[in-house]
Amino acid sequence: MTAREIAALVGGELIGDGDRELDSGQTLDRAGESQLAFWERRRDEQKMPLTNAGCVIVDYETRAPSRTLIRSRHPRRAFAQAMRAVMRTPAQPGRIDASATVSPTAAVAEDVSVGPFSVVEAGASIGRGTFVGAQVFVGKGAVVGQDCRLYPGAKIFGNARLGARVILHGGAVIGADGFGLIFESDHYEKFPQIGGVEIGNDVEIGANSCVDRGALDDTRIGDGTKLDNLVHIGHNCQIGRHVVMAAQVGLSGSVIVEDYAVLGGQVGVGDRARIGAGAQLGGQTGLLPDKRLANGGTYWGTPARPLREQLLGQAHVGRLPRLLKAVKRMRQRIKELESS
Amino acid sequence: MTAREIAALVGGELIGDGDRELDSGQTLDRAGESQLAFWERRRDEQKMPLTNAGCVIVDYETRAPSRTLIRSRHPRRAFAQAMRAVMRTPAQPGRIDASATVSPTAAVAEDVSVGPFSVVEAGASIGRGTFVGAQVFVGKGAVVGQDCRLYPGAKIFGNARLGARVILHGGAVIGADGFGLIFESDHYEKFPQIGGVEIGNDVEIGANSCVDRGALDDTRIGDGTKLDNLVHIGHNCQIGRHVVMAAQVGLSGSVIVEDYAVLGGQVGVGDRARIGAGAQLGGQTGLLPDKRLANGGTYWGTPARPLREQLLGQAHVGRLPRLLKAVKRMRQRIKELESS
Amino acid sequence: MTAREIAALVGGELIGDGDRELDSGQTLDRAGESQLAFWERRRDEQKMPLTNAGCVIVDYETRAPSRTLIRSRHPRRAFAQAMRAVMRTPAQPGRIDASATVSPTAAVAEDVSVGPFSVVEAGASIGRGTFVGAQVFVGKGAVVGQDCRLYPGAKIFGNARLGARVILHGGAVIGADGFGLIFESDHYEKFPQIGGVEIGNDVEIGANSCVDRGALDDTRIGDGTKLDNLVHIGHNCQIGRHVVMAAQVGLSGSVIVEDYAVLGGQVGVGDRARIGAGAQLGGQTGLLPDKRLANGGTYWGTPARPLREQLLGQAHVGRLPRLLKAVKRMRQRIKELESS
Repeated sequence: MTAREIAALVGGELIGDGDRELDSGQTLDRAGESQLAFWERRRDEQKMPLTNAGCVIVDYETRAPSRTLIRSRHPRRAFAQAMRAVMRTPAQPGRIDASATVSPTAAVAEDVSVGPFSVVEAGASIGRGTFVGAQVFVGKGAVVGQDCRLYPGAKIFGNARLGARVILHGGAVIGADGFGLIFESDHYEKFPQIGGVEIGNDVEIGANSCVDRGALDDTRIGDGTKLDNLVHIGHNCQIGRHVVMAAQVGLSGSVIVEDYAVLGGQVGVGDRARIGAGAQLGGQTGLLPDKRLANGGTYWGTPARPLREQLLGQAHVGRLPRLLKAVKRMRQRIKELESS
Repeated sequence: MTAREIAALVGGELIGDGDRELDSGQTLDRAGESQLAFWERRRDEQKMPLTNAGCVIVDYETRAPSRTLIRSRHPRRAFAQAMRAVMRTPAQPGRIDASATVSPTAAVAEDVSVGPFSVVEAGASIGRGTFVGAQVFVGKGAVVGQDCRLYPGAKIFGNARLGARVILHGGAVIGADGFGLIFESDHYEKFPQIGGVEIGNDVEIGANSCVDRGALDDTRIGDGTKLDNLVHIGHNCQIGRHVVMAAQVGLSGSVIVEDYAVLGGQVGVGDRARIGAGAQLGGQTGLLPDKRLANGGTYWGTPARPLREQLLGQAHVGRLPRLLKAVKRMRQRIKELESS
Repeated sequence: MTAREIAALVGGELIGDGDRELDSGQTLDRAGESQLAFWERRRDEQKMPLTNAGCVIVDYETRAPSRTLIRSRHPRRAFAQAMRAVMRTPAQPGRIDASATVSPTAAVAEDVSVGPFSVVEAGASIGRGTFVGAQVFVGKGAVVGQDCRLYPGAKIFGNARLGARVILHGGAVIGADGFGLIFESDHYEKFPQIGGVEIGNDVEIGANSCVDRGALDDTRIGDGTKLDNLVHIGHNCQIGRHVVMAAQVGLSGSVIVEDYAVLGGQVGVGDRARIGAGAQLGGQTGLLPDKRLANGGTYWGTPARPLREQLLGQAHVGRLPRLLKAVKRMRQRIKELESS
């Protein structure tokens, strides 16, 4: 794309050589002549560092050496938008690797790619334009929507249904049995795990993350939700739309997370807890079973408390040494008063 | 199975049509004519909601519209028991997929199934009735008992021995090197990791969980123990029988967990710590190296303390704001006394 | 090797039969006639237990039954050193399994082994002596140095470059997309994740661990660094040399960890935080975004504080019950003074 095309796309103001061809993006310090970069000022900075980038997206205030620039109010966002366009991979003809095992009863759309040593079992269906990498497993009857990307080693069991444009990173496991046990006199038996997993459109699930199937009902993840690596979603969880979970978050069974909630890294949530829409949980927060967090609140700590309360508690604990000394002095003064 | 057969199996009282055929289970609201459901009253509820289920297991008190019922004192448990019978998969003739690589020196029982792109190396042995899914790895000399289920992508290294009826979920790794390092002047060298992993009967290990081999001796997991997803078991851990660990629990090296202990999600345990029989650890509890927890106790927090003590500590911290104010007022009163 | 050769190798003093042949190592209680063991005294112990080991490495003070011994000042370290020599696998002729898919444009050195169902894509390069296990994925253009060990199920995406002698355990994922999102009015879009991963020499990465590619720049891990299982390294992290991270550690994006730092199990680190050289973080420590920890310090807790401060804080909280009682008594005494 040319700098002029990118400026138009992101609604920015072009300065300099609009015919400049840009084929990829890079950081400001590493970009070359055919690359797009962006720069966001930090406090106190006004002048952009030198760069070899073919074109740089900057805000309207930055002083930049005269070269090809695109002025934008949100350089980072404009850069991301431009990159999505620049990198849009041209539609490739689908190609089923000769080594893949695809059941004759699987419904694989014509332009789907399937990599080496991948397995698509009987009755599974895969929508148009979906990329199935190497060593992927798609079980009996699983449904994968169109334009999905299933990276090497991803595993989708037969009980799962994925919407369109879903991304599963390497090693993600969708639809394994939930952790349901019944204690029988002296040992545990499995509670039946025969529900499914339903994943909406535009969901992204990180490397080696696990989403368990429901016990009887389904585990659900709404449109646009993004999970980082090594996340665990227990059986029957109901995750809303546009939820974000950072790496290593763990949800027990039947947890409800409403739309637009944000969970920091390593957050742990107990059975049947409910997280309100737009709530934000700081890293490592621990939410106890059956608890509810209000819409839009910010929470931190174990047990989870409103951030402000949690910080106050920490401040009070921090004042304890002074308090202990004050009490000691007061006791001395009382003793003196009593003996006077 | 018929409703009559199920009632007999679970020791319940049949009401209605004993000839009703039931072929699977479902939740009360989703079940259809040929499906079994169950219903457990919550407080205040006496009447079961309407359902299309062919048969429902309920307790003796519930009022239920006249239809086919099974009365039982433990509806959930009876349902689980019935489902195990209903869903018992008929013995299938073993089938080694043509694409699998099975060493001629591996001892694979005749009715074992091996899925596509799985590898069974030299000298490994796999017992009768075991199901090996797609893309599974069973290393040189590994021993897998009978009636096990190894789901797609599970990896068993050659040092591991599994008992009967063991379930490994997708991506579980059994027998990787432990994390043993020796610092040599300015860098780390590996301490030899040449022990094995010994897993008893009826053990279940969750998706993408890892059980490391011992350094010299073996890592051991006793009969009936159940691990959820993304659990880490370090080298030389000795896990007893019927232990339960929720998702993302991590055990460092040489940890001892005695029979029937229960570890909540994200619990972390330091080297050589010991958890007594039947002890229960709340989610995210952190147990320091070399510590011991008594049999049957309930613990929470980091560092792990008896639950009661931990809750008291939290309550005391919660009273700090009032305490700080009280101390301030007292100081004022003392000052007044002193100047009077 | 003979006991004499081992004694010379570790710089120890040989006592007994120097011609004794030793072919492997074991714990003292399990070792047999052809095996090397070691014994380290604990406090109060002076006499080594009986053993069938062919040779035992002990310190200079231990009383040991007359047999073949090697005296050393660091028995454990000497044992590890000896085992590395004893177990050095003889150079094997490389062997590409017939079932593997290796691109004709991949540069695979002649003595590389590639296991069944592994994939080496176009333009990838693999150095001399490297062992690629079964079901491994090496993406387009990835670089793997010499004498590496890639265990079954490891996945290396095309943006990654590994040095020499790197070990990836089963299921590790190197070079998946980082977790970079941009909020666009009502949903998230991906920020481009097009950087790479650069891993130095002698790095070890545990089973099912994940190292994400950089957004634009690279994620880097320095020479000699060791990561345990299920560790998450976010995009653009810069990990120094000889860093140690125990299992389930999670680093958000752009974290800097300097040389020789040690992170305990389940530590969580926020975006852009910086951990100084040689700093030690206790298990489950939570370091907030943008925070810095000084070189060589020891830290614990969430939020991370110097260990001493953290322990003092805990001690103060422990004294709260007594403090509350003391304040109550003082209030009573003040009341008495006031009314006297």
